[in-house]
Amino acid sequence: MSHSSKISNSVCDQVAEFRLVHADSTWSRQTAECKCVEGRLSDAKIYESSTEVGVTWTVVSPIIFTYRVIQSERLLDTSNDTLLFGHISNPAEIQALKNNSKVMKRFIVIDETVNDLYGSQVAAYFEGRGVKYKILHLPTTEENKTMTLVTSILEEVHKFGIDRRTEPIIAIGGGVCLDIAGLAASLYRRRTPYIRVPTTLLAYIDASVGAKTGVNFANCKNKLGSYIPPVATFLDRTFLCTLPRRHISNGMAEMLKMALMKHKGLFELLQKEGRSLLDSRFQLRIPENVHTDAASVSTRLAIETMLEELAPNLWEDDLDRLVDFGHIISPELEMKILPELLHGEAVNIDMAFMVYVAHERGFLTEEEKRRIIVCMQSLELPVWHSDCTLDLVQRSLTERLKHSGGLLRMPLPTALGKARIFNDIEDSIVCQAFKKWCDEHCETTMKPQ
Amino acid sequence: MSHSSKISNSVCDQVAEFRLVHADSTWSRQTAECKCVEGRLSDAKIYESSTEVGVTWTVVSPIIFTYRVIQSERLLDTSNDTLLFGHISNPAEIQALKNNSKVMKRFIVIDETVNDLYGSQVAAYFEGRGVKYKILHLPTTEENKTMTLVTSILEEVHKFGIDRRTEPIIAIGGGVCLDIAGLAASLYRRRTPYIRVPTTLLAYIDASVGAKTGVNFANCKNKLGSYIPPVATFLDRTFLCTLPRRHISNGMAEMLKMALMKHKGLFELLQKEGRSLLDSRFQLRIPENVHTDAASVSTRLAIETMLEELAPNLWEDDLDRLVDFGHIISPELEMKILPELLHGEAVNIDMAFMVYVAHERGFLTEEEKRRIIVCMQSLELPVWHSDCTLDLVQRSLTERLKHSGGLLRMPLPTALGKARIFNDIEDSIVCQAFKKWCDEHCETTMKPQ
Repeated sequence: MSHSSKISNSVCDQVAEFRLVHADSTWSRQTAECKCVEGRLSDAKIYESSTEVGVTWTVVSPIIFTYRVIQSERLLDTSNDTLLFGHISNPAEIQALKNNSKVMKRFIVIDETVNDLYGSQVAAYFEGRGVKYKILHLPTTEENKTMTLVTSILEEVHKFGIDRRTEPIIAIGGGVCLDIAGLAASLYRRRTPYIRVPTTLLAYIDASVGAKTGVNFANCKNKLGSYIPPVATFLDRTFLCTLPRRHISNGMAEMLKMALMKHKGLFELLQKEGRSLLDSRFQLRIPENVHTDAASVSTRLAIETMLEELAPNLWEDDLDRLVDFGHIISPELEMKILPELLHGEAVNIDMAFMVYVAHERGFLTEEEKRRIIVCMQSLELPVWHSDCTLDLVQRSLTERLKHSGGLLRMPLPTALGKARIFNDIEDSIVCQAFKKWCDEHCETTMKPQ
Repeated sequence: MSHSSKISNSVCDQVAEFRLVHADSTWSRQTAECKCVEGRLSDAKIYESSTEVGVTWTVVSPIIFTYRVIQSERLLDTSNDTLLFGHISNPAEIQALKNNSKVMKRFIVIDETVNDLYGSQVAAYFEGRGVKYKILHLPTTEENKTMTLVTSILEEVHKFGIDRRTEPIIAIGGGVCLDIAGLAASLYRRRTPYIRVPTTLLAYIDASVGAKTGVNFANCKNKLGSYIPPVATFLDRTFLCTLPRRHISNGMAEMLKMALMKHKGLFELLQKEGRSLLDSRFQLRIPENVHTDAASVSTRLAIETMLEELAPNLWEDDLDRLVDFGHIISPELEMKILPELLHGEAVNIDMAFMVYVAHERGFLTEEEKRRIIVCMQSLELPVWHSDCTLDLVQRSLTERLKHSGGLLRMPLPTALGKARIFNDIEDSIVCQAFKKWCDEHCETTMKPQ
């Protein structure tokens, strides 16, 4: 043992800390004591220590991700600059591009269904702006969410040719489309900027605002992917007009998630206005009320609460995540009965069960529990499913333990719009909650089937 | 125009800056003025501004990459902890893992040739340590450096099953092997830690110390990839014993690059001891001289100078890079005559030509130029190639302009061990340098062929 610890490199006498300074085209190391060179200082650091057999260096290098989430209107109106320049924050840079005689290029990945509805408008936009463009429409369904589709995007991007620094790939569609195109972009030349334009409510408030990309692999959801955020996301509610009603409900499940976890006001708004938002597909009733209409306020709150949780944990290094609410048993459920359930529906079934757990633990009153369930139902979301068995619930919790560093990390509402992460939910509580959940919903839910 | 600028989201009245504070399981936004909540503060920030049509949020979120580069000895000796625990900096964490009764798992990707030489030792190491392991040996050649090989690694990793947080994938081999395995790891579950164990000199001082992973695509070198550094790189010179002499020279080209760009002392060392390092394959002549032997000193300086340049620019956002020296015309040359030339050989031909350019521009004296060329020759590296035509050189410079934001950004030595980045090298200088280069080497190089 003493011999092995001699070889081990963890035994070091002294660690020297170096900052890095740039002068005359060259980076040099500098200790805190000796500031011999004047120049630009990096945020990166190098630590060095000597062992009996050599040197150990530790590199600490921060990479700063910056991305914009922009609410816009009439995104496909030729007079709207956003789609072309919205990702650029410096107005002088935009002006320079406008003055430049060089023809701009844009590669667009669009979902097939969205292309049927909006493809000609997208083409007209780029034609009207004198941009050389290529629209690649793909069947971006959950079943096609594979590396093969990523590769076919990459082949087309490569054939078309874009400037990796200044010509972002634009993805227009639902979450699957944005996830696939995002992964393709993050692989191309080790990182090509991309833009997300969500056309579903779910993507608008969820997939669009974070950093995750991904595809399914070996029968597992999003098993491969990256944490590379887009340079920008452009949000235009107009796209929701053509969305089936069920898909509006679907998106509202993730909105309700943020309400239950973090924002009582948003919950009350959904309770009061949820049904009418569903009816209006989140379009403004009076165009002038852009900042006060329930459609604006609810989407804004959903995105703000989501960004609050995502920005400090962009790469999900912290495993304690409130945004995991509704995502503890839903993955297993989705895998079991896809494509019967949409993602938001599976999430809502999970949340409904968890509300019973929270009630059983004494965090929510019977009245609060009832209010939440009634709200879910008014949004036309399922609150129970016969395939969500106790066995599936328990298996999901075991899986969770395995992938969360040995802790359960279960987000639960502790009041309306408040939540905490719990590691100590006993199996008996889970079983009692499950029984009550089934007793109260099994029959009513079964009947209409 | 006034209409379009009204729609444009770049027109904002006021920008509010929010920091993020964590308390009671929840992240909340906080302005600089109102510090209403006490809690853990994030480095991330959210900026918000209202436009006429909605809100624009800008997320700024730093991700800190930390990785260790560790020189070790007898890495495959069962008594050496490094291969299992070297990536962990906290001794208590290592002790906890040793005390834990749970069987550890490791997935190893190894080059086929390296497996023939060291595979049984690798197996013996993990067996001796009671680790459940899977060794996947692959033909990691430049021709096989494709997404297909990445996918086949991923399938095996998935079948074997590893804990994404605590069981890093280990890659053992040359640069191609490390690049492929690194890309597979960075895709798996959006980021699985991996470890690099280089077995060639080139990988030891170059591929191992940076963040880049990659595969070839559409006939282009490293067209797809990521900037995800390994959790650790373990350097053991013993592997170099079995390396063909030509591959030692190959690695020394990248070492010479760092010497010419940044370190006169390293250049003088290579001039004086280079040939004997080549003969000894970088093994210590007297084991006790571990810190003073030319093999130790030269590799240490090569890695330190490389880390100096890489750590502040891990994602290559700064396009002015001294490490690009030797990589301006070599990519075209490699593509043209692979597999005749090894990477370091192509790099050296590029560097030799650039030395003539630097001389032509008056940065290097005739004597300095001669010393560099003689040093290259003593390392048995090619200093000229008939396929490196003036046309190829000029085409490469045009390509460079295209991919470097319109500037040439050509690193050139300005003295021995000093360099700067130039954007204004006239074509006439290039042509004159090319003529002299050919005049002085064409015949001598052609003869032995």
